[in-house]
Amino acid sequence: MLGCWLARTGVKTRIIDKRASKITRGHADGVQCRTIEIFQSFGIADGLRREGNELAEVVFYNPDKEGKLVLTSRIPDTDPHTSRFRHVVLTQGRIEDFLIACMDKEGLRVERSVVPISFEYEPDQPITVKLAHLPKTEEYIDPSSGLYRSNVVTTDSENLDIKDARIEEIKAKYVVGCDGAKSWTRQQLGFSLEGDSANIYWGVLDARPITDLPDIRVKVVLHSADAGSLLIVPRERNLVRFYIQMGTLQPGEKLDPRAQSSEKIIESARRILAPYTLECPEVEWWSVYEIGQRICRDVSFDNRVFLTGDAFHTHSPKAGQGMNISMADSYNLGWKLAAVSKGLASPSILDTYGQERIQVARELIEFDHKFSRLFSGKPAVTAESEGISIEEFQALWVKMGKWNSGTAVRYGPSLIVAEAGEAKTRMARNVVIGQHFESQVVVCYADAHAVQLADRLVSDGRWRLIVFAGNMTNPVQLARFTSLCDTLSSSPSSPIKKYTPAQADINSVFEVIALTSSPRLALPYTALPALVRPLVGKFGYPTYDQIYSDEKSVHDGGGEAYKWYGVDKEGEGCVVLVRPDQYVADVLAFEGCVEKLGMFFDRFMLPPS
Amino acid sequence: MLGCWLARTGVKTRIIDKRASKITRGHADGVQCRTIEIFQSFGIADGLRREGNELAEVVFYNPDKEGKLVLTSRIPDTDPHTSRFRHVVLTQGRIEDFLIACMDKEGLRVERSVVPISFEYEPDQPITVKLAHLPKTEEYIDPSSGLYRSNVVTTDSENLDIKDARIEEIKAKYVVGCDGAKSWTRQQLGFSLEGDSANIYWGVLDARPITDLPDIRVKVVLHSADAGSLLIVPRERNLVRFYIQMGTLQPGEKLDPRAQSSEKIIESARRILAPYTLECPEVEWWSVYEIGQRICRDVSFDNRVFLTGDAFHTHSPKAGQGMNISMADSYNLGWKLAAVSKGLASPSILDTYGQERIQVARELIEFDHKFSRLFSGKPAVTAESEGISIEEFQALWVKMGKWNSGTAVRYGPSLIVAEAGEAKTRMARNVVIGQHFESQVVVCYADAHAVQLADRLVSDGRWRLIVFAGNMTNPVQLARFTSLCDTLSSSPSSPIKKYTPAQADINSVFEVIALTSSPRLALPYTALPALVRPLVGKFGYPTYDQIYSDEKSVHDGGGEAYKWYGVDKEGEGCVVLVRPDQYVADVLAFEGCVEKLGMFFDRFMLPPS
Repeated sequence: MLGCWLARTGVKTRIIDKRASKITRGHADGVQCRTIEIFQSFGIADGLRREGNELAEVVFYNPDKEGKLVLTSRIPDTDPHTSRFRHVVLTQGRIEDFLIACMDKEGLRVERSVVPISFEYEPDQPITVKLAHLPKTEEYIDPSSGLYRSNVVTTDSENLDIKDARIEEIKAKYVVGCDGAKSWTRQQLGFSLEGDSANIYWGVLDARPITDLPDIRVKVVLHSADAGSLLIVPRERNLVRFYIQMGTLQPGEKLDPRAQSSEKIIESARRILAPYTLECPEVEWWSVYEIGQRICRDVSFDNRVFLTGDAFHTHSPKAGQGMNISMADSYNLGWKLAAVSKGLASPSILDTYGQERIQVARELIEFDHKFSRLFSGKPAVTAESEGISIEEFQALWVKMGKWNSGTAVRYGPSLIVAEAGEAKTRMARNVVIGQHFESQVVVCYADAHAVQLADRLVSDGRWRLIVFAGNMTNPVQLARFTSLCDTLSSSPSSPIKKYTPAQADINSVFEVIALTSSPRLALPYTALPALVRPLVGKFGYPTYDQIYSDEKSVHDGGGEAYKWYGVDKEGEGCVVLVRPDQYVADVLAFEGCVEKLGMFFDRFMLPPS
Repeated sequence: MLGCWLARTGVKTRIIDKRASKITRGHADGVQCRTIEIFQSFGIADGLRREGNELAEVVFYNPDKEGKLVLTSRIPDTDPHTSRFRHVVLTQGRIEDFLIACMDKEGLRVERSVVPISFEYEPDQPITVKLAHLPKTEEYIDPSSGLYRSNVVTTDSENLDIKDARIEEIKAKYVVGCDGAKSWTRQQLGFSLEGDSANIYWGVLDARPITDLPDIRVKVVLHSADAGSLLIVPRERNLVRFYIQMGTLQPGEKLDPRAQSSEKIIESARRILAPYTLECPEVEWWSVYEIGQRICRDVSFDNRVFLTGDAFHTHSPKAGQGMNISMADSYNLGWKLAAVSKGLASPSILDTYGQERIQVARELIEFDHKFSRLFSGKPAVTAESEGISIEEFQALWVKMGKWNSGTAVRYGPSLIVAEAGEAKTRMARNVVIGQHFESQVVVCYADAHAVQLADRLVSDGRWRLIVFAGNMTNPVQLARFTSLCDTLSSSPSSPIKKYTPAQADINSVFEVIALTSSPRLALPYTALPALVRPLVGKFGYPTYDQIYSDEKSVHDGGGEAYKWYGVDKEGEGCVVLVRPDQYVADVLAFEGCVEKLGMFFDRFMLPPS
């Protein structure tokens, strides 16, 4: 994910991986809505939808008073209005493939069998990292077992023999450890993960099951009376991911990896599922993990070294958050690192990485702590009996739906997120400063296409001004919008003027996207300001994708955007400032907009050299 | 297209192409709805939607009484309800890539620089074809000019020197000439194209234009007062395809290819478009063609040699029919040839290729004759003045929309299409025997997915029985459906019993898909007949994708299917028999269904050997 950003923004990057090959089976598989939105912004969401299995429903099974499993509730997996996308599941290996292909287009590849062996840091100097390029080995690792990467194996069990390795010294401006729970980078910084263990262990299994449980192609959350809990996640290629409660440990007790097997996991599943049957003639992958939550207090050092993902937070996998939040960490960091590396922004914006992502990680840990204990708890069969409340568990599940989808994240005020306020809320009631800009269907003036507005927020490093231009058949409003565009294009205090290189296209650093409340054919296309239909490129081709109308399309809906965003169709309009990662940085009135934008960007943008 | 069918059905096939490389620029670009449906059935429609430009609107410009160009009408390009897909445009080279990749998955490739040089036919013997494998040449052909393939060049201008070629003799059971208007295969059969020329020539140009015409990203149909007509088709990658009327020829006069150029075409376009301006700094491709319509009376010889596409019908390109109808020819032929080659069906079904496709080609020629003359005609400025009627032209355009989309094709009764009739129409009022089975959103019992029902009609050679099972909460109707399934699975007269090999999965020749009018949760999944949830494959995995409900899904519509197809939700249901190419072969009542199916298939199916 970080590589995608850096490759697309042209930052010289190397990615090293100590492993000889990428993941092909198992591991993470849930792709949350916000992650699909991010993939879409890189143009790589199609594969998720094509190959992944969309989860439509969640079904809860619980013991009745006699202890017999019964279906107690059935709900949609993704609540409508969560996102234009829905939760899908697909093996991590394919998800990595999409990211790898995305980087590869720009010429960036993962260098495998390369291990970092030393790290030297001096302020204001390049960071020196020594790398060992391991000789190619043909060592066989059973691809169906994920144990060697799980948290029940505390040391790296692989034989990373650097004796015959070629040693290389590299000088780096920045180092980012996306290197997992046992992060080498974290160790160099002397940071550590802090937290506790629940002393409970679960098995995980990818298989094609033969079962008489009718609900096997929807998500099933199942608490048995006495045999533990189980989560069923139907996957691509008729696979099913099972999470299966296995047992408890004494405080301090370590699980013996050699005693684990897929057969033992299937046996536990059968006990939990009884009287339903289960056969798994083909097991694609399995592993065992202990439940625990750990977090690192710091995620960056001197704004030169950063940690993302499991290197700074680990937890249990059942809510499908690990891969998603880890990718979101890197997505948050990527564009900032690119802007600073390329001299467009001051290093101070890198402070916001930790500010924004530690808060998310803390929420994750807190949620997972509660969630995993309820999941592993023995259900109370009646309100009076001991055990966890099924009602409480199901209520938590529903409540956490939006958070789990990744679309509820809200970043606090910072150098790159303005303070919210009453006046701003009045202009766009449902546009939340600090949250990502949500999508609505709008219609393109030039080609009459119905477009998801957020699809225009491509991850290319540009900031965007989404101008709710209002009713263009009102001459006063058209004049106000024209005047705003004129000032944005020509005022010396306009950030567009100040931070766009003189020879570059006017939309190359900031892109202005207009959304009118009036229909697209209400006035001639050329009556709209030149700023939103600029001439670009070597030949000066007109731009046709910056002007949209909030009208109903022939085929694909639309006409609800102003209402959805909470902007008055006949009002004075407003400007929504959107960061390169689609988060709303500010909402501004037309009047004073250019000066306020100027002040906002003057805090961290650097003029073109 | 033919290769896709043959590769996917496992027929040993060779594809030869005399050209050294595939098309990269220009040529056809319109992909009609029915073609996208076909691509979808091969699992390769995604690329069309991802890379192609969907056309949303058609705008008509015509001269007013003073001869000034004015916008006279604006209509949607694809009428709602035409298909679940919409008309897109994309360069032919990419469309070929998708087909090539689809074949390649099965190991079938196009052999290039291979020319057929002799053809020997004896009844009941293999056909002997000699091939010349040309040495690789580095001859430069200007990729931006398409003249050498156009109909203004009457002989093949390429230098196909077979002197140094390696000669190979192959023995073929079947030969299909998909070899264009100058078809070598057709010449071997002694067949010829018959028809006439309009003595009018047009230019065609792919360019990125700079113009002040505001409607350049929608389709524009433009008749000027005196300078001729023009068609604008906005394409992928900001390209625009222009068709530009150039001039007339004397009867018998031939155009001099050497006198043609992109500059001359752009000059003509400027005259037609005036007073709007046009600059084309980058021309990707151009060509010139004469308007004419020609058709071959026969398309097959002894059911051993066949002609498809331009080898049997040529016409003008502006309605975007050539590539689409040509692919539809091959799509019609492919599954039949596969079934006969594999010994599943008698060769008599091959007669239906000509029966079905000659009719379509005749309609095409007739339509194009009328359409191209109206397009090239000088518009009458008033009702009284001379010239073609703009109203007549626009009315024809709208009327032909459904036909152009490829979704209106209806095959007549034949060995593989039953006679229609009042009683059949009553059972499913909007299911037309001989037309392709249209799509509606239905909900899958097992996973709650909203599914386009036609997406289940994958091109894999299987026949399908779509059973409108009715209301499963009505015990009488459930019993009738169960009885139908029992008879289908076990009666000796059932074609499923007779024509499915004993060791094969029960859904491998005929797939039964049930659509209930009752909701999916109205009765337990396992209460439905085993025929629609069979155990398949080596391990006997349950099938979860053969039972659907006509209910509303949470996210994606649905609940309108019975109404759309015209089947009574509370009635006795019916069975729609669908061919491997999605065309409806018959509509049957439950009672007598198995016997009638038996008689239908006994006419041409062969029992497994």
